Amino acid sequence: MITRMSSLFLRTLREDPADAEVPSHKLLVRAGYVRRVAPGGYSWLPLGLRVLRNIERVVREEMDAIGAQEIQFPALLPKEPYEATNRWTEYGPNIFRLKDRKGADYLLGPTHEELFALTVKGEYSSYKDYPVALYQIQTKYRDEARPRAGILRGREFVMKDSYSFDLTDEGLAEAYQRHRAAYIKIFDRLGMDYVIVSATSGAMGGSASEEFLAVAPNGEDTFVRSTESDYAANVEAVTTPAPPAQPVEGRPEAQVHSTPATPTIDTLVEFFNNAGLGREFTAADTLKNVLVKTRVPGSDWELLAIGLPGDREVDLKRLEAAVEPAEVAMLDEADFKAHPFLVKGYIGPGALLANEVRYLVDPRVVEGTAWVTGADQHEHHVVDLLCGRDFTPDGTIDVAEVREGDPSPDGKGVLVAARGIEIGHIFQLGRKYADAFSLDALGPDGKPVRITMGSYGIGVSRLVAAIAEQSHDDRGLIWPRNVAPADVHVVVAGKDATLLEGGEKLAGELSSAGLSVLLDDRKASPGVKFADAELVGVPTILVVGRGLASGLVEVKDRRSGERVEVPVDEAVQHVLAVARG
Amino acid sequence: MITRMSSLFLRTLREDPADAEVPSHKLLVRAGYVRRVAPGGYSWLPLGLRVLRNIERVVREEMDAIGAQEIQFPALLPKEPYEATNRWTEYGPNIFRLKDRKGADYLLGPTHEELFALTVKGEYSSYKDYPVALYQIQTKYRDEARPRAGILRGREFVMKDSYSFDLTDEGLAEAYQRHRAAYIKIFDRLGMDYVIVSATSGAMGGSASEEFLAVAPNGEDTFVRSTESDYAANVEAVTTPAPPAQPVEGRPEAQVHSTPATPTIDTLVEFFNNAGLGREFTAADTLKNVLVKTRVPGSDWELLAIGLPGDREVDLKRLEAAVEPAEVAMLDEADFKAHPFLVKGYIGPGALLANEVRYLVDPRVVEGTAWVTGADQHEHHVVDLLCGRDFTPDGTIDVAEVREGDPSPDGKGVLVAARGIEIGHIFQLGRKYADAFSLDALGPDGKPVRITMGSYGIGVSRLVAAIAEQSHDDRGLIWPRNVAPADVHVVVAGKDATLLEGGEKLAGELSSAGLSVLLDDRKASPGVKFADAELVGVPTILVVGRGLASGLVEVKDRRSGERVEVPVDEAVQHVLAVARG
Repeated sequence: MITRMSSLFLRTLREDPADAEVPSHKLLVRAGYVRRVAPGGYSWLPLGLRVLRNIERVVREEMDAIGAQEIQFPALLPKEPYEATNRWTEYGPNIFRLKDRKGADYLLGPTHEELFALTVKGEYSSYKDYPVALYQIQTKYRDEARPRAGILRGREFVMKDSYSFDLTDEGLAEAYQRHRAAYIKIFDRLGMDYVIVSATSGAMGGSASEEFLAVAPNGEDTFVRSTESDYAANVEAVTTPAPPAQPVEGRPEAQVHSTPATPTIDTLVEFFNNAGLGREFTAADTLKNVLVKTRVPGSDWELLAIGLPGDREVDLKRLEAAVEPAEVAMLDEADFKAHPFLVKGYIGPGALLANEVRYLVDPRVVEGTAWVTGADQHEHHVVDLLCGRDFTPDGTIDVAEVREGDPSPDGKGVLVAARGIEIGHIFQLGRKYADAFSLDALGPDGKPVRITMGSYGIGVSRLVAAIAEQSHDDRGLIWPRNVAPADVHVVVAGKDATLLEGGEKLAGELSSAGLSVLLDDRKASPGVKFADAELVGVPTILVVGRGLASGLVEVKDRRSGERVEVPVDEAVQHVLAVARG
Repeated sequence: MITRMSSLFLRTLREDPADAEVPSHKLLVRAGYVRRVAPGGYSWLPLGLRVLRNIERVVREEMDAIGAQEIQFPALLPKEPYEATNRWTEYGPNIFRLKDRKGADYLLGPTHEELFALTVKGEYSSYKDYPVALYQIQTKYRDEARPRAGILRGREFVMKDSYSFDLTDEGLAEAYQRHRAAYIKIFDRLGMDYVIVSATSGAMGGSASEEFLAVAPNGEDTFVRSTESDYAANVEAVTTPAPPAQPVEGRPEAQVHSTPATPTIDTLVEFFNNAGLGREFTAADTLKNVLVKTRVPGSDWELLAIGLPGDREVDLKRLEAAVEPAEVAMLDEADFKAHPFLVKGYIGPGALLANEVRYLVDPRVVEGTAWVTGADQHEHHVVDLLCGRDFTPDGTIDVAEVREGDPSPDGKGVLVAARGIEIGHIFQLGRKYADAFSLDALGPDGKPVRITMGSYGIGVSRLVAAIAEQSHDDRGLIWPRNVAPADVHVVVAGKDATLLEGGEKLAGELSSAGLSVLLDDRKASPGVKFADAELVGVPTILVVGRGLASGLVEVKDRRSGERVEVPVDEAVQHVLAVARG
C-alpha cells in the first residue's frame, strides 16, 4: 500500500498546541495524528487511526491466542444492572448519565463487568460450559474531573476489556496467568518499556491484582523498583521486610523520663542524645503511635493505633489499601475527649493495650526491638520499651511511607521511585459480580456452583500516547515497527521529475513486496519534507535525492539517526531486511 | 482458523424471542448472533461480530479504493457545532443529550456533518488541498421513538459516513458518482438485492440524492419499480409522464351545468353520464382543485391550488417534498371565510386565476385536455373546460398519488409498489454546512472559494439484518459468502471417535488452505447439529458421518440444499472450489 502525502489528509504543525504539556500530546497533535474536539475528546486523523488499529490488531491476536472470544456490547447502557451492583451510585460524578425520550436512565459504560456477567448468565447454565473468557475492544466513557495530556487521560477512549469465568479459584488463577502472559506478549510486541506492579484493587473489589505500567516520567502513577532486580510495585503493595527478631533476655529495663519541651521527634531525639544515657539515638529509634478510626460501611467507627518508627509517616494510600473495604479517617477533638487515656503527643503502647485499642505495628517493630516512645503522660517518654517483653502488638500493618533507598522486598538492591502510565490491569475479581446477579453453573451433582470472575483491561487508545511518551526525541515521534503508520517513509528530496519518478518506482516496489509506504511526493522543499519525516516518525526513511543520479539512495533509521547510502537497485532488499528485522 | 463449537460462546435457541416480529430479528437472536441489552441496544456475540466485521471490511476496501481516507470522531460531541447549524434544535427528541459534570451540554452524534466540516476547515486552507473525501465507520446514536426489528432500527448502531469536499459543483458531482459506483460495488459484493431510488433530501437540505434500498417485504420504506426495466424510485421522486398536447381548435365550448346532489366525484360522474351529453365520463375526466397553503419559514402563508384528475388524491409526502423547504398546511374554515371566492366543493380554475391564487396542475393536465370541474357557484359544474383555451395554469406540480399500474416514467412497463430497507444514502449536500462554518479555500486568485459537500452513508450494522431479511429460509440464516461467519461448517455427525478424528483432520486441512472453519465437535446428537448448522447459516456444510467408514463425506450447499457425496481425500479440494466460487 502506498499513501501519498500530496493527498493525505495531514497538516503538520510547527508549533506545540497551547494546551499541551507532555511530549506525546504535543507531538501527536503536531504530527497530525489526533485533533481535539472537546475536553478529553479527540478525533483520530488518518495516521493516528492506523496506529490505533495496529495496536488493536496486536491486542486482538494475543487475546484470540489464549482462547478469549471477542464480542461487543453497546456503550449506551441501562441503569438497572449498575444499580444491582451499586456502581450506579459508587461512580458518583465519574460517569456520564443521561435519560432517553421516555425518561429512562442510561449511562455511557465506563467498564462492562455487569453486562459480561449477565450475558454469560443468559447463555450458559451447566458446569460443562465453563471456563470461558470473553473480551471486547470498545469505546468507553468516564467523566474525568480533569481530562489531561491529550489521549493519555480522555473522557472517551478505546479499551480492551476481558473477563474470565471459572468454576473454581484454581481456574481463575489459571485464567489470570494466561492473561498475564498474553499481556506480556502484547506489550513486548508493542516495544514498550514497562513494569508489572502488584496493585491494590481500588473500587472494583477482589483480591489478586497487578498493573502494567509503561515507564514514563510524565506518568500519573508512582511506583518503586529495585536498583538490582526486576522487582517493581505500587507503593500500596510494597512489603517491608521484617528484620530478624532479637533476644529479650538481658536487655535494659524500660525507663520513663520526664521530657519537657520535646514537641517533635527531632527535639525528642536531641533530648535523649543529651540525656547522658551513653547512647546515640536517631528518629528511627523512636516509636510513633498514630491514631485513626476505621469502619466497614454500616457499622460504627473503631479506633486503630499504628505504631511505626518515628522517621516515617503513615502513607495514606497504603493505609486505605490496607484497611479496604473499611474506610479510614483521622481522629478529631471529640474522639480524643471520648478517650481520655489518649495523651496527645505522648501516646504509648501501654495505654493502647490497656484500653483494648487495636494496635498494629510496622513490620520493623519485631520482637526484641527497643523503642523510645510515649509514656501516656504529658511530657513523658519511655526509653528501652522492648517489643515482646514490655508490649505485644495485635499484629502488623505495612503502611509506612516507602522511601527511595529502602531495601527491595526481594532482598536485591534498594528501591527507587519512578513514574508510569497504567496501560494494563489484571485482576482476580472473584465472586462480587456473580453474587450480584446469581451467576451460577449447575454442577455435576445438580447443585449450583457460583462462578468466579477475572477482569483484565488494556487502555488501547492510551497506548498510542504511552508509546509516544516512551518513543520520541526533540524532532518528533519514533514509532516501534509493529505500531508505525507505515513501514517506510520515501522522501522525494527535490523537484526534479526524475526524482519523483525514482521515488514512485521504489515506492511501488516496496509496496509490491508487502510493505506499507508513505510517499512524500509533495512539491515542498527537502527541508520541510525531512522535518515532517522526523516528526511523523516512521521507523525507516528512504531518501531519494541528488545521489540518484549516481545510482544511490539513502536509508535512514529514525531511531538511531544512522544513515547509509545504498545502490538504488538494492534499496528494496535493504529496506525489507531492515523492516523485517 | 478453526472455531470449535464445543467452546464457542454460542447457545442457539429453539424458540423465537417474544419481542421479535421480522425474520432477521428472530433468526439473529435464535442463532446466537445478537442479544438485546436495552430498547434498540444489542450486544454482538462472536458469530454476529464476525459478520459485522466482514461487512465493515468490504465497505472499508471500497471506500479506500475511491481514495476516501478513514478517520474517526468521538461519539460524545459538544453542543456548539450543532447549534451553529441549528440541528441541536431541529433534531428535537431524536438525539440523546447529556450534560457533563460541569453542566456543559453534549450529544451522542447521530451524524457528523458538523465535525467533518470543522475538521477540514481546521486542516485545509488552499484550493490546492482540494478535493478530499473522508469517512469513518463509527457507532452512532439516535433516540428512536420506536426502535424496532432488532438491529434493523436500533438506537445505537454502526454507520459508515463519508463526506466529500470540493471546490466546484462539477467536483461534487464527480465525487457523488464515485461514491455511487463504490456503493454499487459494496452491495454487489455483499450479495444484496437492492434498488437505487431517487430520494428527496429530508431534513438535511440540498439537492441530488439517491437511496439504496434492500428489497425486503419487511422494509420500512416503500418505493415503486417498473415491471419491465430497472427503474425504481421513492414515491416522492416519481415523475408523471405528460401526455401529448392536443389541438384546441374546433373543440366544444365549455358549458356550465346545474349539478344538484353531486357531493362526490362519483355522483358527479354519474350525473353527467345521465345528462344526455352522448359521452361516457370517468373520474379521470374531472379536474379536482385542492387548496392548501404554504409558507417559507419567516414569511406569511400563501394559498396554493392544485389541479389534478378526480381519480387521484394528493399524496402528502409528495406534496411536502415538492414544496420543500416551504411548509404546507390544509385550509381551515377561517381561510375559506377570508377568501369568499372559494366555493367549497365547486372550485374551478376560473375563480382561482381571477383572484391570482397560485394554481399548479398535475402533469396530465396539458394543453387541449378537456375537464369537468367546478364552476365557482354552489351546485354548478362546467364541462369541456379546455386547458390552454379556457384556463392557463401557473405551472405543474407532480404530487398526485402514484398507483400500481401507472406507466413507468422511463416508458418501459408499469409501476408496482415494493418495500425496502434503506441501506445507503448518497446526497449532494451542497454548501449548507460550509456556509454554517465559513468553510472556504483560498483560490488561485487570492479570493475565498466556498466549499461544497457531499454526504454518503451506509448502515453497517443494519446491513447484517438487511442481509438476513433477504437471505434465510424456514430453517435459518443463509449467509452470502463474503459476509458469512465462516467459510465452511464441518459437522461431526456421530459420537464415534474416528468421526471426530476425521472431522478434526479435515478442519485442519481446510484451515491450512486458508478457509475459516466452524467445527461442530460437540457431543450433541447429529439431529441437533444439523439443525444448528441450518440455523447458523454458513454457506457450505461438510458432514463427516457414517459414510466416512467407506471413505465418503457429504458436502451440502446451505442455500440450494443440494448435497453431494465426495471421497474424503477430495473433500478439501471440493470445498475450496465451492468456497472460492
